[in-house]
Amino acid sequence: MGVAENETKGALVLSSGGLDSTTVMAIAGSQGFRIYSLSFRYGQRHAVELDAARRVAQALGAVAHRVVDIDLAGLGGSALTGHMDVPKTDRVPAPEDSIPVTYVPARNTIFLSYALAWAEVLDICDIFIGVNSIDYSGYPDCRPEYIEAFEHMANLATRMGVEEGRQVRIRVPLIHMTKAQIIEKGIALGVDYGLTHSCYDPAPDGRACGRCDSCLIRKQGFVKAGRVDPITYKE
Amino acid sequence: MGVAENETKGALVLSSGGLDSTTVMAIAGSQGFRIYSLSFRYGQRHAVELDAARRVAQALGAVAHRVVDIDLAGLGGSALTGHMDVPKTDRVPAPEDSIPVTYVPARNTIFLSYALAWAEVLDICDIFIGVNSIDYSGYPDCRPEYIEAFEHMANLATRMGVEEGRQVRIRVPLIHMTKAQIIEKGIALGVDYGLTHSCYDPAPDGRACGRCDSCLIRKQGFVKAGRVDPITYKE
Repeated sequence: MGVAENETKGALVLSSGGLDSTTVMAIAGSQGFRIYSLSFRYGQRHAVELDAARRVAQALGAVAHRVVDIDLAGLGGSALTGHMDVPKTDRVPAPEDSIPVTYVPARNTIFLSYALAWAEVLDICDIFIGVNSIDYSGYPDCRPEYIEAFEHMANLATRMGVEEGRQVRIRVPLIHMTKAQIIEKGIALGVDYGLTHSCYDPAPDGRACGRCDSCLIRKQGFVKAGRVDPITYKE
Repeated sequence: MGVAENETKGALVLSSGGLDSTTVMAIAGSQGFRIYSLSFRYGQRHAVELDAARRVAQALGAVAHRVVDIDLAGLGGSALTGHMDVPKTDRVPAPEDSIPVTYVPARNTIFLSYALAWAEVLDICDIFIGVNSIDYSGYPDCRPEYIEAFEHMANLATRMGVEEGRQVRIRVPLIHMTKAQIIEKGIALGVDYGLTHSCYDPAPDGRACGRCDSCLIRKQGFVKAGRVDPITYKE
Protein backbone atom coordinates (compact mmCIF):
# COMPACT_ATOMS: atom_id res chain seq x y z
CA MET A 1 0.00 0.00 0.00
CA GLY A 2 1.68 3.25 -1.08
CA VAL A 3 1.54 6.40 1.02
CA ALA A 4 0.59 8.54 -1.99
CA GLU A 5 -2.52 6.52 -2.86
CA ASN A 6 -3.85 6.89 0.68
CA GLU A 7 -3.38 10.63 0.94
CA THR A 8 -6.96 11.48 0.11
CA LYS A 9 -8.33 8.50 2.06
CA GLY A 10 -9.56 8.47 5.61
CA ALA A 11 -8.96 5.66 8.07
CA LEU A 12 -10.97 5.03 11.19
CA VAL A 13 -8.75 3.99 14.10
CA LEU A 14 -10.15 2.46 17.29
CA SER A 15 -8.22 4.05 20.14
CA SER A 16 -8.11 3.14 23.81
CA GLY A 17 -5.21 5.46 24.53
CA GLY A 18 -3.14 2.34 25.17
CA LEU A 19 0.13 1.13 23.73
CA ASP A 20 -1.29 -1.04 20.95
CA SER A 21 -3.93 1.28 19.53
CA THR A 22 -1.52 4.23 19.67
CA THR A 23 1.02 2.26 17.64
CA VAL A 24 -1.73 1.36 15.18
CA MET A 25 -2.67 5.02 14.80
CA ALA A 26 0.98 5.88 14.09
CA ILE A 27 1.13 3.10 11.48
CA ALA A 28 -2.05 4.32 9.75
CA GLY A 29 -0.63 7.85 9.74
CA SER A 30 2.67 6.62 8.28
CA GLN A 31 0.68 5.01 5.43
CA GLY A 32 -0.74 8.42 4.52
CA PHE A 33 -4.30 8.06 5.81
CA ARG A 34 -6.21 10.94 7.36
CA ILE A 35 -6.98 9.66 10.87
CA TYR A 36 -10.44 9.54 12.46
CA SER A 37 -10.01 8.40 16.07
CA LEU A 38 -12.83 6.59 17.86
CA SER A 39 -12.93 5.81 21.59
CA PHE A 40 -15.59 4.43 23.93
CA ARG A 41 -16.78 5.36 27.39
CA TYR A 42 -18.03 2.25 29.17
CA GLY A 43 -18.33 1.28 32.82
CA GLN A 44 -16.56 3.43 35.37
CA ARG A 45 -13.04 2.08 35.51
CA HIS A 46 -11.50 3.67 32.48
CA ALA A 47 -11.97 7.45 32.56
CA VAL A 48 -8.19 7.84 32.61
CA GLU A 49 -8.03 5.90 29.31
CA LEU A 50 -10.16 8.55 27.62
CA ASP A 51 -7.77 11.33 28.64
CA ALA A 52 -4.94 9.29 27.13
CA ALA A 53 -6.94 8.67 23.92
CA ARG A 54 -7.56 12.41 23.53
CA ARG A 55 -3.89 13.25 24.06
CA VAL A 56 -2.81 10.58 21.57
CA ALA A 57 -5.27 11.70 18.86
CA GLN A 58 -3.99 15.26 19.20
CA ALA A 59 -0.33 14.26 19.23
CA LEU A 60 -0.73 12.07 16.14
CA GLY A 61 -2.65 14.70 14.17
CA ALA A 62 -6.05 12.99 13.94
CA VAL A 63 -8.55 15.12 11.97
CA ALA A 64 -11.35 14.06 14.35
CA HIS A 65 -11.67 12.28 17.67
CA ARG A 66 -15.06 10.97 18.85
CA VAL A 67 -16.03 9.35 22.12
CA VAL A 68 -19.11 7.13 22.01
CA ASP A 69 -20.92 6.15 25.20
CA ILE A 70 -21.65 2.48 25.37
CA ASP A 71 -23.93 0.94 27.88
CA LEU A 72 -22.21 -2.33 28.78
CA ALA A 73 -22.46 -2.04 32.55
CA GLY A 74 -26.21 -2.66 32.45
CA LEU A 75 -25.65 -6.04 30.83
CA GLY A 76 -23.05 -7.15 33.42
CA GLY A 77 -20.47 -9.88 33.08
CA SER A 78 -16.96 -8.39 33.33
CA ALA A 79 -14.43 -7.07 35.83
CA LEU A 80 -13.77 -4.17 33.43
CA THR A 81 -17.31 -2.84 33.64
CA GLY A 82 -17.39 -2.66 37.40
CA HIS A 83 -19.05 -5.85 38.63
CA MET A 84 -15.98 -7.78 39.83
CA ASP A 85 -12.49 -7.03 41.13
CA VAL A 86 -9.64 -6.89 38.62
CA PRO A 87 -7.27 -9.73 39.63
CA LYS A 88 -3.68 -8.88 40.60
CA THR A 89 -0.83 -11.28 40.05
CA ASP A 90 2.87 -11.39 39.30
CA ARG A 91 2.56 -13.90 36.45
CA VAL A 92 2.29 -12.61 32.89
CA PRO A 93 -0.77 -14.24 31.29
CA ALA A 94 -0.29 -16.71 28.43
CA PRO A 95 -2.55 -17.35 25.42
CA GLU A 96 -3.24 -20.90 26.64
CA ASP A 97 -4.77 -19.61 29.89
CA SER A 98 -8.54 -19.71 30.13
CA ILE A 99 -10.48 -16.53 29.30
CA PRO A 100 -9.96 -14.12 32.25
CA VAL A 101 -12.65 -12.21 34.18
CA THR A 102 -11.47 -8.96 32.57
CA TYR A 103 -12.95 -10.26 29.30
CA VAL A 104 -15.89 -8.04 28.30
CA PRO A 105 -18.54 -10.06 26.45
CA ALA A 106 -18.62 -9.20 22.75
CA ARG A 107 -16.56 -6.05 23.37
CA ASN A 108 -14.60 -5.91 20.13
CA THR A 109 -17.77 -6.80 18.22
CA ILE A 110 -19.55 -3.82 19.74
CA PHE A 111 -16.53 -1.55 19.18
CA LEU A 112 -16.14 -2.62 15.54
CA SER A 113 -19.88 -2.26 14.95
CA TYR A 114 -19.78 1.40 15.98
CA ALA A 115 -16.62 1.85 13.91
CA LEU A 116 -18.48 0.40 10.94
CA ALA A 117 -21.37 2.81 11.49
CA TRP A 118 -19.10 5.84 11.61
CA ALA A 119 -17.01 4.59 8.68
CA GLU A 120 -20.17 4.31 6.62
CA VAL A 121 -21.23 7.86 7.53
CA LEU A 122 -17.74 9.14 6.61
CA ASP A 123 -17.59 6.93 3.49
CA ILE A 124 -14.39 5.33 4.76
CA CYS A 125 -13.45 1.71 3.96
CA ASP A 126 -10.40 1.24 6.22
CA ILE A 127 -10.89 0.45 9.91
CA PHE A 128 -7.79 -0.10 12.04
CA ILE A 129 -7.83 -2.00 15.33
CA GLY A 130 -4.90 -2.95 17.57
CA VAL A 131 -5.74 -6.58 18.22
CA ASN A 132 -2.87 -8.96 18.70
CA SER A 133 -2.76 -12.73 18.86
CA ILE A 134 0.70 -13.08 20.45
CA ASP A 135 1.10 -11.13 23.71
CA TYR A 136 -2.56 -10.91 24.63
CA SER A 137 -4.93 -11.88 27.38
CA GLY A 138 -6.66 -14.85 25.76
CA TYR A 139 -9.78 -13.04 24.54
CA PRO A 140 -11.57 -14.87 21.69
CA ASP A 141 -12.25 -11.63 19.81
CA CYS A 142 -8.54 -10.90 19.31
CA ARG A 143 -7.87 -13.78 16.91
CA PRO A 144 -7.30 -13.45 13.13
CA GLU A 145 -10.23 -15.76 12.27
CA TYR A 146 -12.57 -13.54 14.27
CA ILE A 147 -11.36 -10.42 12.45
CA GLU A 148 -11.80 -12.09 9.05
CA ALA A 149 -15.34 -13.13 9.97
CA PHE A 150 -16.18 -9.59 11.10
CA GLU A 151 -14.83 -8.13 7.86
CA HIS A 152 -16.92 -10.55 5.78
CA MET A 153 -20.04 -9.67 7.77
CA ALA A 154 -19.27 -5.93 7.51
CA ASN A 155 -19.25 -6.08 3.74
CA LEU A 156 -22.71 -7.66 3.74
CA ALA A 157 -24.03 -5.22 6.37
CA THR A 158 -23.39 -1.89 4.75
CA ARG A 159 -24.34 0.37 1.91
CA MET A 160 -20.63 0.55 0.96
CA GLY A 161 -20.19 -3.20 0.66
CA VAL A 162 -23.56 -3.77 -1.01
CA GLU A 163 -24.41 -0.90 -3.34
CA GLU A 164 -21.11 0.43 -4.47
CA GLY A 165 -19.04 -2.74 -4.67
CA ARG A 166 -16.37 -1.35 -2.38
CA GLN A 167 -14.66 -3.40 0.30
CA VAL A 168 -14.57 -2.65 4.01
CA ARG A 169 -11.19 -3.69 5.40
CA ILE A 170 -10.52 -4.40 9.08
CA ARG A 171 -6.81 -3.68 9.28
CA VAL A 172 -4.85 -5.37 12.08
CA PRO A 173 -1.19 -4.44 11.59
CA LEU A 174 -0.19 -5.79 15.04
CA ILE A 175 -1.91 -9.16 14.75
CA HIS A 176 1.27 -11.24 14.49
CA MET A 177 3.66 -8.96 16.40
CA THR A 178 5.04 -9.49 19.90
CA LYS A 179 4.63 -6.64 22.39
CA ALA A 180 8.37 -5.93 22.07
CA GLN A 181 8.05 -5.67 18.27
CA ILE A 182 5.06 -3.33 18.65
CA ILE A 183 7.09 -1.07 20.95
CA GLU A 184 10.04 -1.06 18.51
CA LYS A 185 7.72 -0.18 15.64
CA GLY A 186 6.12 2.66 17.57
CA ILE A 187 9.47 4.10 18.66
CA ALA A 188 10.69 3.95 15.04
CA LEU A 189 7.59 5.98 14.08
CA GLY A 190 8.23 8.53 16.83
CA VAL A 191 5.46 7.50 19.25
CA ASP A 192 5.74 8.96 22.75
CA TYR A 193 4.53 6.08 24.94
CA GLY A 194 4.48 8.47 27.88
CA LEU A 195 1.11 9.67 26.49
CA THR A 196 -0.41 6.19 26.65
CA HIS A 197 -2.28 4.33 29.37
CA SER A 198 -2.63 0.54 29.59
CA CYS A 199 -3.66 -0.31 33.17
CA TYR A 200 -6.98 -2.05 33.89
CA ASP A 201 -7.11 -0.65 37.43
CA PRO A 202 -5.29 2.69 37.80
CA ALA A 203 -4.74 4.46 41.14
CA PRO A 204 -6.86 7.57 41.88
CA ASP A 205 -3.93 9.76 40.71
CA GLY A 206 -3.98 7.97 37.32
CA ARG A 207 -0.83 5.91 37.82
CA ALA A 208 -0.84 2.35 36.48
CA CYS A 209 -1.20 -0.37 39.14
CA GLY A 210 1.71 -2.41 37.77
CA ARG A 211 0.11 -5.75 38.65
CA CYS A 212 -2.92 -6.34 36.41
CA ASP A 213 -2.57 -8.47 33.25
CA SER A 214 -2.31 -5.40 31.04
CA CYS A 215 0.46 -3.79 33.13
CA LEU A 216 2.41 -7.05 33.33
CA ILE A 217 2.26 -7.60 29.55
CA ARG A 218 3.31 -3.99 28.92
CA LYS A 219 6.22 -4.06 31.38
CA GLN A 220 7.48 -7.35 30.00
CA GLY A 221 7.28 -5.90 26.46
CA PHE A 222 9.50 -2.95 27.35
CA VAL A 223 11.98 -5.27 29.09
CA LYS A 224 12.15 -7.57 26.04
CA ALA A 225 12.51 -4.57 23.71
CA GLY A 226 15.37 -3.28 25.89
CA ARG A 227 13.56 0.05 26.26
CA VAL A 228 12.51 2.11 29.25
CA ASP A 229 8.75 2.46 29.79
CA PRO A 230 8.22 6.22 30.22
CA ILE A 231 5.12 5.91 32.43
CA THR A 232 5.25 5.59 36.23
CA TYR A 233 3.75 2.64 38.09
CA LYS A 234 2.26 2.52 41.56
CA GLU A 235 4.27 -0.66 42.23
CA MET B 1 -37.34 -27.98 17.61
CA GLY B 2 -39.65 -29.33 20.32
CA VAL B 3 -41.29 -27.09 22.90
CA ALA B 4 -40.24 -29.43 25.75
CA GLU B 5 -36.54 -29.27 24.98
CA ASN B 6 -36.60 -25.49 25.07
CA GLU B 7 -38.41 -25.16 28.37
CA THR B 8 -35.27 -24.63 30.42
CA LYS B 9 -33.60 -22.53 27.72
CA GLY B 10 -33.61 -18.78 27.43
CA ALA B 11 -33.90 -16.86 24.19
CA LEU B 12 -32.89 -13.29 23.67
CA VAL B 13 -35.40 -11.41 21.50
CA LEU B 14 -34.61 -8.02 19.94
CA SER B 15 -37.76 -5.96 20.33
CA SER B 16 -38.66 -2.62 18.80
CA GLY B 17 -42.27 -2.83 19.95
CA GLY B 18 -43.19 -3.16 16.27
CA LEU B 19 -45.21 -5.72 14.37
CA ASP B 20 -42.32 -7.95 13.27
CA SER B 21 -40.37 -8.21 16.52
CA THR B 22 -43.57 -8.75 18.49
CA THR B 23 -44.49 -11.65 16.22
CA VAL B 24 -40.97 -13.04 16.66
CA MET B 25 -41.34 -12.84 20.44
CA ALA B 26 -44.63 -14.74 20.24
CA ILE B 27 -42.97 -17.40 18.05
CA ALA B 28 -40.05 -17.81 20.50
CA GLY B 29 -42.55 -18.13 23.34
CA SER B 30 -44.59 -20.73 21.43
CA GLN B 31 -41.39 -22.78 21.05
CA GLY B 32 -41.05 -22.92 24.84
CA PHE B 33 -38.18 -20.49 25.36
CA ARG B 34 -37.99 -18.20 28.38
CA ILE B 35 -37.94 -14.72 26.81
CA TYR B 36 -35.35 -12.01 27.50
CA SER B 37 -36.45 -8.87 25.66
CA LEU B 38 -33.87 -6.30 24.54
CA SER B 39 -34.66 -2.83 23.18
CA PHE B 40 -32.56 0.21 22.32
CA ARG B 41 -32.91 3.90 22.96
CA TYR B 42 -31.27 5.85 20.14
CA GLY B 43 -31.78 9.27 18.67
CA GLN B 44 -34.91 11.15 19.66
CA ARG B 45 -37.60 9.95 17.28
CA HIS B 46 -38.56 6.68 18.82
CA ALA B 47 -39.48 7.16 22.50
CA VAL B 48 -42.98 5.90 21.67
CA GLU B 49 -41.40 2.64 20.39
CA LEU B 50 -39.95 1.97 23.82
CA ASP B 51 -43.36 2.25 25.48
CA ALA B 52 -44.66 -0.29 22.96
CA ALA B 53 -41.68 -2.61 23.58
CA ARG B 54 -42.32 -2.54 27.33
CA ARG B 55 -46.04 -3.28 26.88
CA VAL B 56 -45.29 -6.14 24.50
CA ALA B 57 -42.64 -7.74 26.79
CA GLN B 58 -45.13 -7.65 29.65
CA ALA B 59 -48.04 -8.99 27.56
CA LEU B 60 -45.94 -11.86 26.19
CA GLY B 61 -44.56 -12.87 29.60
CA ALA B 62 -40.88 -11.99 29.10
CA VAL B 63 -38.83 -12.82 32.21
CA ALA B 64 -36.72 -9.68 31.67
CA HIS B 65 -36.84 -6.56 29.51
CA ARG B 66 -33.77 -4.35 29.16
CA VAL B 67 -33.34 -1.05 27.36
CA VAL B 68 -29.79 -0.19 26.27
CA ASP B 69 -28.84 3.36 25.36
CA ILE B 70 -26.97 3.58 22.12
CA ASP B 71 -25.19 6.64 20.96
CA LEU B 72 -25.84 6.68 17.20
CA ALA B 73 -26.88 10.30 16.88
CA GLY B 74 -23.31 11.50 17.49
CA LEU B 75 -22.14 9.58 14.44
CA GLY B 76 -24.83 11.01 12.14
CA GLY B 77 -26.06 9.63 8.87
CA SER B 78 -29.75 8.70 9.12
CA ALA B 79 -33.22 10.21 9.12
CA LEU B 80 -34.09 7.91 12.03
CA THR B 81 -31.50 9.42 14.35
CA GLY B 82 -32.66 12.96 13.91
CA HIS B 83 -30.49 14.51 11.20
CA MET B 84 -32.87 14.44 8.24
CA ASP B 85 -36.62 14.45 7.63
CA VAL B 86 -38.39 11.13 7.28
CA PRO B 87 -39.79 11.08 3.73
CA LYS B 88 -43.56 10.79 3.21
CA THR B 89 -45.06 9.11 0.19
CA ASP B 90 -48.06 7.09 -0.93
CA ARG B 91 -46.03 4.38 -2.66
CA VAL B 92 -45.14 1.23 -0.74
CA PRO B 93 -41.36 0.72 -1.03
CA ALA B 94 -40.05 -2.26 -2.99
CA PRO B 95 -36.90 -4.33 -2.35
CA GLU B 96 -35.41 -3.16 -5.67
CA ASP B 97 -35.49 0.48 -4.55
CA SER B 98 -32.20 2.06 -3.53
CA ILE B 99 -31.37 2.17 0.18
CA PRO B 100 -33.58 4.88 1.75
CA VAL B 101 -32.48 7.73 4.06
CA THR B 102 -34.17 6.02 7.00
CA TYR B 103 -31.40 3.40 6.82
CA VAL B 104 -29.27 3.65 9.98
CA PRO B 105 -25.64 2.75 9.24
CA ALA B 106 -24.72 -0.64 10.74
CA ARG B 107 -27.82 -0.60 12.92
CA ASN B 108 -28.60 -4.31 13.01
CA THR B 109 -24.90 -5.03 13.50
CA ILE B 110 -24.85 -2.80 16.58
CA PHE B 111 -28.14 -4.26 17.85
CA LEU B 112 -26.98 -7.85 17.37
CA SER B 113 -23.62 -7.06 18.99
CA TYR B 114 -25.33 -5.91 22.18
CA ALA B 115 -27.63 -8.94 21.99
CA LEU B 116 -24.55 -11.14 21.73
CA ALA B 117 -23.01 -9.46 24.80
CA TRP B 118 -26.14 -9.97 26.89
CA ALA B 119 -26.62 -13.52 25.58
CA GLU B 120 -23.09 -14.35 26.68
CA VAL B 121 -23.70 -12.91 30.16
CA LEU B 122 -26.92 -14.93 30.43
CA ASP B 123 -25.32 -18.02 28.87
CA ILE B 124 -27.98 -18.05 26.14
CA CYS B 125 -27.29 -19.35 22.63
CA ASP B 126 -30.51 -18.35 20.84
CA ILE B 127 -30.95 -14.78 19.61
CA PHE B 128 -34.16 -13.93 17.74
CA ILE B 129 -34.47 -10.94 15.39
CA GLY B 130 -37.41 -9.94 13.20
CA VAL B 131 -35.61 -9.25 9.96
CA ASN B 132 -37.44 -9.96 6.77
CA SER B 133 -36.27 -10.08 3.18
CA ILE B 134 -39.69 -9.84 1.48
CA ASP B 135 -41.75 -6.84 2.61
CA TYR B 136 -38.88 -4.67 3.78
CA SER B 137 -37.30 -1.31 3.14
CA GLY B 138 -34.21 -2.40 1.19
CA TYR B 139 -31.73 -2.31 4.07
CA PRO B 140 -28.60 -4.44 3.41
CA ASP B 141 -28.57 -5.78 6.98
CA CYS B 142 -31.95 -7.51 6.61
CA ARG B 143 -30.77 -10.14 4.12
CA PRO B 144 -30.21 -13.85 4.92
CA GLU B 145 -26.54 -13.76 3.84
CA TYR B 146 -25.88 -10.94 6.28
CA ILE B 147 -27.50 -12.89 9.14
CA GLU B 148 -25.46 -16.01 8.32
CA ALA B 149 -22.25 -13.95 8.30
CA PHE B 150 -23.11 -12.38 11.65
CA GLU B 151 -23.81 -15.81 13.17
CA HIS B 152 -20.47 -17.16 11.93
CA MET B 153 -18.64 -14.14 13.38
CA ALA B 154 -20.56 -14.42 16.67
CA ASN B 155 -19.35 -17.97 17.19
CA LEU B 156 -15.74 -16.84 16.80
CA ALA B 157 -16.25 -13.77 19.00
CA THR B 158 -17.49 -15.30 22.20
CA ARG B 159 -16.59 -17.49 25.10
CA MET B 160 -19.61 -19.67 24.29
CA GLY B 161 -18.59 -20.34 20.70
CA VAL B 162 -14.90 -20.73 21.53
CA GLU B 163 -14.43 -22.42 24.88
CA GLU B 164 -17.47 -24.55 25.30
CA GLY B 165 -18.09 -25.69 21.75
CA ARG B 166 -21.65 -24.41 21.79
CA GLN B 167 -23.27 -22.62 18.88
CA VAL B 168 -24.77 -19.18 18.88
CA ARG B 169 -27.82 -19.11 16.61
CA ILE B 170 -29.31 -15.97 15.10
CA ARG B 171 -32.90 -17.05 14.59
CA VAL B 172 -34.90 -15.22 11.91
CA PRO B 173 -38.31 -16.92 11.72
CA LEU B 174 -39.79 -14.13 9.54
CA ILE B 175 -37.00 -14.00 6.97
CA HIS B 176 -39.00 -15.49 4.10
CA MET B 177 -42.49 -14.40 5.15
CA THR B 178 -44.61 -11.65 3.62
CA LYS B 179 -46.04 -9.02 5.94
CA ALA B 180 -49.48 -10.60 5.50
CA GLN B 181 -48.11 -14.01 6.53
CA ILE B 182 -46.41 -12.46 9.57
CA ILE B 183 -49.71 -10.91 10.64
CA GLU B 184 -51.57 -14.22 10.16
CA LYS B 185 -48.92 -16.04 12.20
CA GLY B 186 -49.12 -13.49 15.01
CA ILE B 187 -52.92 -13.57 15.13
CA ALA B 188 -52.81 -17.39 15.25
CA LEU B 189 -50.49 -17.07 18.28
CA GLY B 190 -52.83 -14.58 19.96
CA VAL B 191 -50.77 -11.42 19.44
CA ASP B 192 -52.63 -8.17 20.10
CA TYR B 193 -51.22 -5.87 17.41
CA GLY B 194 -52.93 -2.96 19.13
CA LEU B 195 -49.96 -2.99 21.54
CA THR B 196 -47.43 -2.50 18.75
CA HIS B 197 -45.96 0.58 17.12
CA SER B 198 -44.40 0.68 13.65
CA CYS B 199 -44.28 4.33 12.54
CA TYR B 200 -40.97 6.09 11.84
CA ASP B 201 -42.44 9.52 12.56
CA PRO B 202 -45.32 9.40 15.04
CA ALA B 203 -47.49 12.42 15.94
CA PRO B 204 -46.96 14.05 19.37
CA ASP B 205 -49.93 12.07 20.71
CA GLY B 206 -48.21 8.81 19.65
CA ARG B 207 -50.44 8.06 16.65
CA ALA B 208 -48.76 6.59 13.57
CA CYS B 209 -48.30 9.04 10.68
CA GLY B 210 -49.72 6.61 8.10
CA ARG B 211 -47.40 7.79 5.32
CA CYS B 212 -43.82 6.73 6.12
CA ASP B 213 -42.40 3.54 4.57
CA SER B 214 -43.03 1.57 7.74
CA CYS B 215 -46.71 2.65 8.00
CA LEU B 216 -47.32 1.94 4.33
CA ILE B 217 -45.83 -1.56 4.54
CA ARG B 218 -47.84 -2.30 7.69
CA LYS B 219 -51.14 -1.03 6.28
CA GLN B 220 -50.66 -2.98 3.06
CA GLY B 221 -49.88 -6.12 5.11
CA PHE B 222 -53.18 -5.89 7.01
CA VAL B 223 -55.08 -5.28 3.78
CA LYS B 224 -53.48 -8.32 2.10
CA ALA B 225 -54.13 -10.46 5.20
CA GLY B 226 -57.77 -9.35 5.15
CA ARG B 227 -57.46 -8.18 8.76
CA VAL B 228 -58.20 -4.88 10.48
CA ASP B 229 -55.17 -3.04 11.87
CA PRO B 230 -56.17 -2.22 15.47
CA ILE B 231 -54.02 0.92 15.75
CA THR B 232 -55.20 4.39 14.74
CA TYR B 233 -53.42 6.49 12.11
CA LYS B 234 -53.15 10.26 11.84
CA GLU B 235 -53.99 9.98 8.11
